[in-house]
Amino acid sequence: MTLSSAVSKVQLGKGKIMSKEYDVAIIGAGTAGLTAQEEVVQHTDNYVLIDDGPLGTTCARVGCMPSKALIAVADDFHKCTFFDEYGINGTQKLIPDYQKIMARVRSMADEFAHGVIQEMSGFMDKVIRKRARFLNPNTLDLGDETIRAKRIIIATGSTTVIPDSWLPFREFIIDTDQFFELETLPRTMAVFGLGVIGIELGQALHRLGVQVTAINRRKTAGGLTDPKLAEYAFDHFSKEMPIELGTAEILGRTDTGLQVGCGSKSWNVDRVLIATGRRPALKGLSLENLNLDLDADGIPVFDHQTLQVGNLPVFLAGDVTGRQSILHEAADEGTIAGYNACAGTMSRFKKRIPLKITFSSPDIAIAGLSHKALMEKGIDYVVGEASWEGLGRARMMLGKAAGRARIYAEPQQGRLLGAEIMAPAGEHMAHLLAWTMGADLTIKQILGMPFYHPVPEEALWDAFFQIAEQINEPVPMPMLEKIKGRSHGE
Amino acid sequence: MTLSSAVSKVQLGKGKIMSKEYDVAIIGAGTAGLTAQEEVVQHTDNYVLIDDGPLGTTCARVGCMPSKALIAVADDFHKCTFFDEYGINGTQKLIPDYQKIMARVRSMADEFAHGVIQEMSGFMDKVIRKRARFLNPNTLDLGDETIRAKRIIIATGSTTVIPDSWLPFREFIIDTDQFFELETLPRTMAVFGLGVIGIELGQALHRLGVQVTAINRRKTAGGLTDPKLAEYAFDHFSKEMPIELGTAEILGRTDTGLQVGCGSKSWNVDRVLIATGRRPALKGLSLENLNLDLDADGIPVFDHQTLQVGNLPVFLAGDVTGRQSILHEAADEGTIAGYNACAGTMSRFKKRIPLKITFSSPDIAIAGLSHKALMEKGIDYVVGEASWEGLGRARMMLGKAAGRARIYAEPQQGRLLGAEIMAPAGEHMAHLLAWTMGADLTIKQILGMPFYHPVPEEALWDAFFQIAEQINEPVPMPMLEKIKGRSHGE
Repeated sequence: MTLSSAVSKVQLGKGKIMSKEYDVAIIGAGTAGLTAQEEVVQHTDNYVLIDDGPLGTTCARVGCMPSKALIAVADDFHKCTFFDEYGINGTQKLIPDYQKIMARVRSMADEFAHGVIQEMSGFMDKVIRKRARFLNPNTLDLGDETIRAKRIIIATGSTTVIPDSWLPFREFIIDTDQFFELETLPRTMAVFGLGVIGIELGQALHRLGVQVTAINRRKTAGGLTDPKLAEYAFDHFSKEMPIELGTAEILGRTDTGLQVGCGSKSWNVDRVLIATGRRPALKGLSLENLNLDLDADGIPVFDHQTLQVGNLPVFLAGDVTGRQSILHEAADEGTIAGYNACAGTMSRFKKRIPLKITFSSPDIAIAGLSHKALMEKGIDYVVGEASWEGLGRARMMLGKAAGRARIYAEPQQGRLLGAEIMAPAGEHMAHLLAWTMGADLTIKQILGMPFYHPVPEEALWDAFFQIAEQINEPVPMPMLEKIKGRSHGE
Repeated sequence: MTLSSAVSKVQLGKGKIMSKEYDVAIIGAGTAGLTAQEEVVQHTDNYVLIDDGPLGTTCARVGCMPSKALIAVADDFHKCTFFDEYGINGTQKLIPDYQKIMARVRSMADEFAHGVIQEMSGFMDKVIRKRARFLNPNTLDLGDETIRAKRIIIATGSTTVIPDSWLPFREFIIDTDQFFELETLPRTMAVFGLGVIGIELGQALHRLGVQVTAINRRKTAGGLTDPKLAEYAFDHFSKEMPIELGTAEILGRTDTGLQVGCGSKSWNVDRVLIATGRRPALKGLSLENLNLDLDADGIPVFDHQTLQVGNLPVFLAGDVTGRQSILHEAADEGTIAGYNACAGTMSRFKKRIPLKITFSSPDIAIAGLSHKALMEKGIDYVVGEASWEGLGRARMMLGKAAGRARIYAEPQQGRLLGAEIMAPAGEHMAHLLAWTMGADLTIKQILGMPFYHPVPEEALWDAFFQIAEQINEPVPMPMLEKIKGRSHGE
């Protein structure tokens, strides 16, 4: 495919103005769209960024940022409930003010979103606040005008989904796009789903005193796939808050909310939080005009290394690709799509080591290959297990002495393949594990790294040591590397 | 030196029993002594462990463990003072009960020390609860008996030091061996020194409501050596609590305590906490009988890779070596000394990448080479700077939006040489930095590692990016590595 051949003839709708032809059009001014812009502007000034929704990114407005702000309050408040053990009196006098809490969370989210919009001020003249749909691979219908572009990047992100059968109850259902707009918190709430968002918000609400019942179909939480760890996590969170195993149902209305059910049980709740994930926002793009191959999930088939859709001058970047919503991956994809959209030939890019973090307490994270991925790929591995239940440092910090990890390594040199972890400071150890995978260290090299005392990282040592014992060439004195040759001292 | 020649003739004191000859004698049952035991027992059962002091290790009894337990309470209590900002009311009702707080800290320390003693139960028959002094390199006088050993490991640890001129005020002076025995906390306290212990305990006491005045001779804290970062840290902590720059003096007694001074200022305080560091515990070992070379600090000259003292069958391990008290290094040294004490020839061992953490808030850490070490060695470097002052995630968590780091890299490929850091979650990022140094990654490889969002690690990205811009071969698209060859997709 060459640039010139890609610019095919344009079918104009009736009464539309053919205003301009661009080198690149980016649909969506979220994280991926903005990094695409950042890359594109290095190559051409003749581009356009199209978005008819609220600016400021999903992350800043309704995703990572407000959720972390709420979790910070909830975790700190929760810790106070144990203060008696510390020797600090008076915690029963602490009262959370839901309106103030939500106002602060909203104010922080607004500020972060505003920061993003501020950064856009340098190229606001390139931003078109309209909805785009494809007429053909080089032409977009924007409603009152039609534009052509040599290359088009689809970075429309994701949307929440509510099943049709629940639409009659819509006024009592809160999705994550709406949650942070709440003026106050409901008294009782059902949380459907214990994925990233379900456990993050469900636990935070529970810790702030909302009567939460969470319902999940499988014995897992936060996306864990290792059956042993998933069950451990499910059981752990079930001890902290009411969690039901089964399929969530909405049974009907009550005077003030909904009756929800799971198996033979039912509850009356003020609101339902739908936390069953987000879907690619492809609706309304008229992709049918592109004559595309779609995968089983209805997502256009695209090259995961170039991000090109089929052989078209069209690219996918960010949450719209249908993989889990992870900001740094969306940002990378925007950059790649922006680069290839401006290049004569398609370049393939290596992905970073996978890293996914759920900011529950303890944190949940998967670094590198998940247990599920290992199984699907049929990769041979040994496992090392870590536990934070008895670790001294974790025990000093109220409510932190919990968590386990399972670390997978190849059986030759014990190089790490992946890890699933639920641990205090797990967000940080997940980085350490992912970077160690990226550095391709052998287990002997890993055991030669410093582990300070007393830190949560010490528990990883146990897992690494178990791996060293199981590999084909066990490490004899694993923590210390002998220097060849004799000492001058002798 | 051979094993047989090392066993020289023994001079017996009068009336002493020559009870036994051992393969190895270890003096000191602290961290280094215990890892030495663990290694020695792999090679011989004919050894002895000599200690006349309290068992349980400095770390568990009066060091890392109780200090971290106190810091956990202080930091969590301190955070509550900002709860109004969160939207949680009633924090003025929280009252710390100093007796309960100290009782919990002591109880945890006792439990950790007891755990160590429990682990010793398998070899308590090898432990002699007496004081040892050298008669010659193979003979120890234990008071009522004399023993011989083919090899002797000195692992006597460190002690606190109070200058002679202050001994008249001893009853009002608290050292770190005594601090955790306090039944309650003083109302007012002067902290002399802002090294690791000074800033850890000084800040914790201040946060718990003790009127603390800290005095330090230089504009630094927690061992930082980079002038820019040291000054930043000093100024930061000075905003939180009263800190004076200058030389601490004890001017005299008051009705209830001491008058202390610094420059032209003076204060009346209930107690003085001496936090000016620990010294190797070499006194009483009668090292003069070994005819040793001593260094400027009075420590026997020893090979830092074999831990052998001169050409003698004697080894040094742990805090007694005179470097900073760091548990994992003491543990490694015990292992090395134990290994070499049982071996026919001396082996040299590689050290782990240096890592030192101060558990202040924000944490302070040095990974790899300090700024001072870089200067002394005259190594060429470029610097990248990170800041946590404006980082979104840090701002969400009360009182956490502070901190900076300076990261040093070699100017060719941007491999990290060292880092000084003061940051929230700094203890974890210091591990990440140290391991990255251990893995010898180039700056291009580092920028290809995953940085999740929103995490404190994101601030490191800025420093890495600055390094990439300064190195001899700047990284063009640093975060993403192109895969060679064209895509099949084209």
